[in-house]
Amino acid sequence: MNQSATYDRIIHNGCVVTLNPEFDIVEDGVVCIQDGLIARIEKKAPDFSSAGEWIDADGGLILPGLVNTHGHLPMSIFRGLADDLPLAEWLNDHIFPAENRFINSDSVKTGAWLSCLEMLLSGTTTCCDGYFLEDSVAEAVLDTGIRAVLAQGVIDFSAPGVSEPAQNLEIATTYVSKWQNASDRIIPSIFCHSPYTCSKETLVRAKEAAAKAGVCFQIHVAETKNEAARIQNEHGLSPVKYLDSLGVLDEQTLVSHAVWVDDGDIDILSSRGVGISHNPESNMKLASGVAPVPKFINAGIPVGLGTDGCASNNNLDLFTEMDTAAKLHKVVSQDPTVMDARTVLRMVTIEGARALGLDDRIGSIEPGKWADLIVIDLRQPHLTPMYHPASHLVYAVRGSDVRDVFVQGVPLVRNRQVIGLDAEEIMRQAAALGRKIWQAD
Amino acid sequence: MNQSATYDRIIHNGCVVTLNPEFDIVEDGVVCIQDGLIARIEKKAPDFSSAGEWIDADGGLILPGLVNTHGHLPMSIFRGLADDLPLAEWLNDHIFPAENRFINSDSVKTGAWLSCLEMLLSGTTTCCDGYFLEDSVAEAVLDTGIRAVLAQGVIDFSAPGVSEPAQNLEIATTYVSKWQNASDRIIPSIFCHSPYTCSKETLVRAKEAAAKAGVCFQIHVAETKNEAARIQNEHGLSPVKYLDSLGVLDEQTLVSHAVWVDDGDIDILSSRGVGISHNPESNMKLASGVAPVPKFINAGIPVGLGTDGCASNNNLDLFTEMDTAAKLHKVVSQDPTVMDARTVLRMVTIEGARALGLDDRIGSIEPGKWADLIVIDLRQPHLTPMYHPASHLVYAVRGSDVRDVFVQGVPLVRNRQVIGLDAEEIMRQAAALGRKIWQAD
Repeated sequence: MNQSATYDRIIHNGCVVTLNPEFDIVEDGVVCIQDGLIARIEKKAPDFSSAGEWIDADGGLILPGLVNTHGHLPMSIFRGLADDLPLAEWLNDHIFPAENRFINSDSVKTGAWLSCLEMLLSGTTTCCDGYFLEDSVAEAVLDTGIRAVLAQGVIDFSAPGVSEPAQNLEIATTYVSKWQNASDRIIPSIFCHSPYTCSKETLVRAKEAAAKAGVCFQIHVAETKNEAARIQNEHGLSPVKYLDSLGVLDEQTLVSHAVWVDDGDIDILSSRGVGISHNPESNMKLASGVAPVPKFINAGIPVGLGTDGCASNNNLDLFTEMDTAAKLHKVVSQDPTVMDARTVLRMVTIEGARALGLDDRIGSIEPGKWADLIVIDLRQPHLTPMYHPASHLVYAVRGSDVRDVFVQGVPLVRNRQVIGLDAEEIMRQAAALGRKIWQAD
Repeated sequence: MNQSATYDRIIHNGCVVTLNPEFDIVEDGVVCIQDGLIARIEKKAPDFSSAGEWIDADGGLILPGLVNTHGHLPMSIFRGLADDLPLAEWLNDHIFPAENRFINSDSVKTGAWLSCLEMLLSGTTTCCDGYFLEDSVAEAVLDTGIRAVLAQGVIDFSAPGVSEPAQNLEIATTYVSKWQNASDRIIPSIFCHSPYTCSKETLVRAKEAAAKAGVCFQIHVAETKNEAARIQNEHGLSPVKYLDSLGVLDEQTLVSHAVWVDDGDIDILSSRGVGISHNPESNMKLASGVAPVPKFINAGIPVGLGTDGCASNNNLDLFTEMDTAAKLHKVVSQDPTVMDARTVLRMVTIEGARALGLDDRIGSIEPGKWADLIVIDLRQPHLTPMYHPASHLVYAVRGSDVRDVFVQGVPLVRNRQVIGLDAEEIMRQAAALGRKIWQAD
C-alpha cells in the first residue's frame, strides 16, 4: 500500500526526531506530507515515491512544530517597557495604564501579528492565547498561518473592548461559537483570568459554558505567594482546592503556572486529569517562584511549557525556555538528573499537545497527524559536534537555528525567512506604536 | 583637536551603549576607530571627519565586545556528549575517559577554534581559558583574532600532555613567559584547578609565580557542596578561608564559581580585592547551587559572567547567560528588582573586564580603549519594539543577533559571517573528531 504514492511534499536528508511514544529517532530520515497530514516516515528517501516538492534538510533535525501552552500574544508591543520592578509597580504604573490607553482592535492585531512572526521564526507552530479583543488575534492567526488555541478573557472587571464586566462571559462564549468551526488552525477556548479576579459564580458559569461547547477551560492558578495567601484567607482553601470545590477542574482544564501548590493539590490535579502550563522564565523574572514540575510529571500530569506574554519574559523562544526549564529544576532540586533532555523536549511537543487536548492531531511526527513540522540547521559552530539530538535541542539549539517551518503542510518559513508575509510592515507598525507607548509611559 | 581627523573606520547610525561609568547611551551615535583604538564617540556622524571605511549600524545597538570570564575552550568537542547525569558519573564515565583518549595538540586546537568561532559569532571578544596543551589554544586565538586570557592548567595529577605532575607548574610558568609579550590579544595567566586537586605547596608556589610575572591567578573555588565539605574536613576551613590562609587571594586573583560561600567568605573576597566569575548555567546544569551574586555586588566585588566549558552548559552564548543570570537570582531571592538589566549588562562588559584586571583596556566604549566592538541587528520581530537598550540586551537579544564584531579595530564578523576564516573546515574537523569520540564513549 502507498508503495508508489505521489506526495505533496517530501522532507528528506534529515534526522527525524519523531517524539512518538518510543521516542524513535530516524537518521537519514524522510517525512512525506499529503493533504496537510503526515503520510509516512521512512529511513532514506523512498525512491518509489515522487513529490510536488522535495525539501532537503541538509543533515539537519526534523521535528514536530513546538507547542507554546501559555501566552498573551498582543502584549509583545509592551516587550521590555518595564522590567526589574516589584510586581505591583510593574502592573499598576506601567502595564495597566499602557493597556488602558493603547489596547484596541488595531493594536491587538499588530501585537498578535508580531508574536506570530516571532513564534514561527523560532519554530513554534501551535500557541495558546488568552486576551481581549480576541477576534483581532484570530485574524492575525488566520493571516500568518500559525495554529492557536484562542480565548477571549473573562474577568469581573471592565476590560479592553468590554465596558460592562457582566458582558465578559457572554462575549467569551459568543467567541467560541463564532470560531469553533471556522478553521482547523483556530481552536477556541474559554479563559478565566484567575480565582482572585473572577467570582465563584463567574468561574462556575464559565466552566459550564466551556464544557457545553466541548472546549478547553484555561485559568492562571497559584502564580504568586500573595494569590495563594489571598485565596486561603478568603475561602479557607488553597487555590487548587478552591477551584476543585467549584467543580471546574477536569480533563478539559488547563492550569497556568501552578507555582504555589502542595502535595495535596498535586494529587487533585493528577486525579482530575488537569493539564498544566509551566512558564519558568516568566515565573523567574517576576520572582513568582518555582513550580514543582518534577512532581507533576511523576504524578502523570500532562505538563507543557509556556513563554507567557512578552511583557514578562521578554521573548517567545521555546528553545531557550527548554534550556531554562531543564537547568532551573536541576539546581533547585540539587539533582542534575531531573528534567532530562527527553522529558523537556516532550514538554514542548507531545506533552504540551496533551495539556491542550490536541495530542491526537499534533505534537509528534506520526502518520495521520497534521504536518506541523520544523527543520533545524545544524551546520553552525555552536551546534558542532552533535552526539544526542534531544540534548542538542534542549541545551544548544536556539530559535534562530530554525530553518523551515510547515503548518498543516504549508511552508511558512523557508531559509529563516517568513514567506508570503510582510514582516517589515508589521515591525514598522509595532515600532510606531511603541514610540507612542514610550512617550506616554 | 581632532576636528578634521581621518579615521580607519567609523561605525555610525547606531545607538551606542557605552558602558562608561555614567552608563551613557548615545542615540544616533558614532564610534571612530583609529590604530585599533576607540578614538572618539559622538552624537550623529561628524561631517568633518573621513574614514577608510564607514560602517552603517542600520539603527542597531553598538556595544563593547562581551567578556567571558571563565571557560575551557577545547571542551567544545565534548558538547552534549553526556548530560543529565550525576557529577561523578559524568566526569568518571564520560569526560575523563574522553579526555584521556582524545585530548592532544590537534584536538585542543580544533576545539579552541570551534569555541572561538562560536564566541565571535555571538559577540564575545575577550574570553578567559584554563586547560592543557594551552599553546594550541594560543594558536587558535592568534588565528581567529579573538582576545583571550590564557592559562596552562596546574593540577597535582598527570594531565593531557604532561605525564609527570611535578612538571605542571613549571610548564605553566614557562607558558606565561612565552606568551607574555607575544600579542596584545593574548594575556597569559596561571590557573590552579582547585583547592582539592592542588596541594598547599602547589597553590602557594603557583600564586608566587603569577605574582612574580604580574599575571592573574585563576582558580575554581567552592563550586560544589562536596568540595566545600571536603576542604572543611581536611583543613578545618571553608575553601575561601583556606585559600586566604595561604595568602593566594588578592587583586590579581580570579575565583570561578564561589557558590558555597558564607558572609565571612564574602567579606574576605571583598577585602582582598578578588574578582569572581559567576557561571549560572553551568552551576544550574550540574546542580552545583546558586552563588550569592547580589551579595557579591553589594560588597563591591568585581563579578563577571562565564559560560564555563561546553561540556557543562552547552553553549558559549553570553546573551542567554545574561538572561539566565538576571532571572535566576530574582526567583531565588524572591525579589524581581535584584540583578536588574544594567547590572547584568555590566557583568559581561566592564565588570567582567575588571574581574580580569583588564578594565583599563576593554569593557566599555571610551576613548583610548581597544576598539573591541559589536553591532546588534534590531530589525527583527523578536526585537521589536525597543524601549530600553539594556533591558533588550539582557532579556530579548540572542547571540544570533550579533551582526558585526571588531577586535582591536579589525573586523572579524560582518553580516553574521566570520570573515577570512574557514569555519566550514573547522566544523568538518570537529564533526569528524566527534564521531570518533562517540564511538569510544
